Amino acid sequence: MKHMEISVRVRYQETDQMGFVYYSNYFVYFEIGRIEFLRNLGFSYSKLEKENIFLAVIDAHCKYKSPARFDDLLTIKTWLSKLKHARIEFRYEIIRKEGEKLLAEGSTTLACLGENRRPRAIPDEIRNTITSKNLLPI
Amino acid sequence: MKHMEISVRVRYQETDQMGFVYYSNYFVYFEIGRIEFLRNLGFSYSKLEKENIFLAVIDAHCKYKSPARFDDLLTIKTWLSKLKHARIEFRYEIIRKEGEKLLAEGSTTLACLGENRRPRAIPDEIRNTITSKNLLPI
Amino acid sequence: MKHMEISVRVRYQETDQMGFVYYSNYFVYFEIGRIEFLRNLGFSYSKLEKENIFLAVIDAHCKYKSPARFDDLLTIKTWLSKLKHARIEFRYEIIRKEGEKLLAEGSTTLACLGENRRPRAIPDEIRNTITSKNLLPI
Amino acid sequence: MKHMEISVRVRYQETDQMGFVYYSNYFVYFEIGRIEFLRNLGFSYSKLEKENIFLAVIDAHCKYKSPARFDDLLTIKTWLSKLKHARIEFRYEIIRKEGEKLLAEGSTTLACLGENRRPRAIPDEIRNTITSKNLLPI
Repeated sequence: MKHMEISVRVRYQETDQMGFVYYSNYFVYFEIGRIEFLRNLGFSYSKLEKENIFLAVIDAHCKYKSPARFDDLLTIKTWLSKLKHARIEFRYEIIRKEGEKLLAEGSTTLACLGENRRPRAIPDEIRNTITSKNLLPI
Repeated sequence: MKHMEISVRVRYQETDQMGFVYYSNYFVYFEIGRIEFLRNLGFSYSKLEKENIFLAVIDAHCKYKSPARFDDLLTIKTWLSKLKHARIEFRYEIIRKEGEKLLAEGSTTLACLGENRRPRAIPDEIRNTITSKNLLPI
Repeated sequence: MKHMEISVRVRYQETDQMGFVYYSNYFVYFEIGRIEFLRNLGFSYSKLEKENIFLAVIDAHCKYKSPARFDDLLTIKTWLSKLKHARIEFRYEIIRKEGEKLLAEGSTTLACLGENRRPRAIPDEIRNTITSKNLLPI
Repeated sequence: MKHMEISVRVRYQETDQMGFVYYSNYFVYFEIGRIEFLRNLGFSYSKLEKENIFLAVIDAHCKYKSPARFDDLLTIKTWLSKLKHARIEFRYEIIRKEGEKLLAEGSTTLACLGENRRPRAIPDEIRNTITSKNLLPI
């Protein structure tokens, strides 16, 4: 596994009066993508937080190519692009299943926080899993 | 003060492809109304939570009469309708300022929670303020 | 089929600082439920809107019994409770799959709108499908 | 006026279980900023849409420096950074009023769409107003 794919169906709530998915919702899709990426790696983000390990977004970017619409079935494609001492970067593509059309692409950088929301290193077990599975681009 | 009024302007994000404010957003307006109601009474809900006092919604109702639209200036009208040992009920009206049109009305019942999110009595200082100001309907 | 079930996983975005799913999001789950209910009946709500048939919520109610939390797998259970000339009422239950715990229950009444968002009768083909499949409680 | 400022108070709905404002909501604040920027210039975005002029986001970026929290009073600072034939770029800062702390900064590029959501030039009256008021950085 180099990337992770998960499907979502566009909710009515996610549309706006232009008839498209409102632009901030793509970042919600990105969040779903990285949570599932981590789960696939063996890490429940929910459990990580219970152990006082938080991943907080410090940078987010999205490029919109074609609008998603209500009821579209979307594929969220997620992969790792960078891993530093205390930061991790994910990249994403949002694809409409019908016609396999690329609708948007983006990235988020997350900082690892520990107790009292203080910066800390990415936990070794996450780092080791990523390295052993060769998940980073060369 | 028997009721509290606060204004909000409808955000583009709150619309849906029908061209109206999406129905769940009225409950967000209700939340804004009760937070401001409490602030007017002298209680910062933010501070209450820091003292481990939480108000969790256990019942919510809204009746939609006419749709709110993007950029509408709305008045959120909030008042207290019931106060029990561990519960408090608010009522709301959402009014479009232009033409003073009633768009929606509703209510929420909130349960008071304390440490570990366990039910507890409404704090005495809130109860006493409500009683001394005669804020409940007879 | 008397009721329709669909699963959703709670998104991080849906939580609030109390650590629970924010109360208005249950109405988004309800929306997902009724869209899938209609799809199961053979009606794409997306296509209905393209034919100028809209279902607008005119009443919404939710009773919260136990909080949903991040990453919970939920079942949205939807059934029809009333069908009038120009209105339709759905009922819902939100159940946490783990332990089959009922978290919330509610209802929404929707009015049928046609061109220029004017009230109109529920389309005959929807009414006939509902009747022929015996989907209404006696 | 080179930039436009508007205040918003963080809603409970905008927080997540980390206790911060969820990251996608900053893009909603950006939207509020640019709508008010346009209003200040004499353009109601609501009216523009009625004349079949749409501004659709094609690129969005946000850098998060310090978290916003529930009930914070924020200033959204908005200015124009680029104006092309059919595109317009806004920049934003989100500042906590208390202590005048910069929490986030970002940008969005919007494409102008016309009938049937087809690309079109930025309307002359908007372009002329921007030029005559010297709103672009040199």
